[in-house]
Amino acid sequence: MDKINIEEKFSLFNDHWSPKVIGELNGQQVKLAKVKGEFVWHSHENEDELFYIIKGNLTLEFRDKTVELSPGEMYIIPKGVEHRPIAENEVHLMLFEPAATKHTGQVIHELTVEKLDWI
Amino acid sequence: MDKINIEEKFSLFNDHWSPKVIGELNGQQVKLAKVKGEFVWHSHENEDELFYIIKGNLTLEFRDKTVELSPGEMYIIPKGVEHRPIAENEVHLMLFEPAATKHTGQVIHELTVEKLDWI
Repeated sequence: MDKINIEEKFSLFNDHWSPKVIGELNGQQVKLAKVKGEFVWHSHENEDELFYIIKGNLTLEFRDKTVELSPGEMYIIPKGVEHRPIAENEVHLMLFEPAATKHTGQVIHELTVEKLDWI
Repeated sequence: MDKINIEEKFSLFNDHWSPKVIGELNGQQVKLAKVKGEFVWHSHENEDELFYIIKGNLTLEFRDKTVELSPGEMYIIPKGVEHRPIAENEVHLMLFEPAATKHTGQVIHELTVEKLDWI
């Protein structure tokens, strides 16, 4: 395999809320996403999910609290915990989660992407 | 859980070649390491391993090639593939691998850390 340059990968797409897969290991995938605006409330029944911020400031809303994330910060959302990401301005982020993770969990929404592209 | 600030975590230790665990999800761990000099040749029989460079330039030697990694670049080493990380100057890196991954694989070396600390 080749090395993966994050900035180069981010330059390959511009759509929001549509994670792209950049790598896979041990049944887990590494994904990049550009997000802006409000996503939909959802949870992942069987998968913990890691958000790592590359650029911009992301708000993670939970039912009982709100977490603000800046570049160089990460948050691990345990399985089953409802969350909603919000980005006032565009945010670039990296996700680590099982390959089986559904984009919006059990929720089907107009933002739902069924099959993620590799870049 | 709380958010994890990478720079803050790096400020908590200075030893080389001794990864610290900063998070766990889906049986995988996120680790930070400061490295300098040459590590030992080793492989991980059952675990793929992801290196992501935060600061500095890392050389990853393989038996058949050499890969140079800069900040913002990552490399996924498939299980069973022998490798040796080399850092001419200090490198800060993030690792993503199964919690069961042994530091130096089947190799026991003076650099081997048996049980990694959480920070």
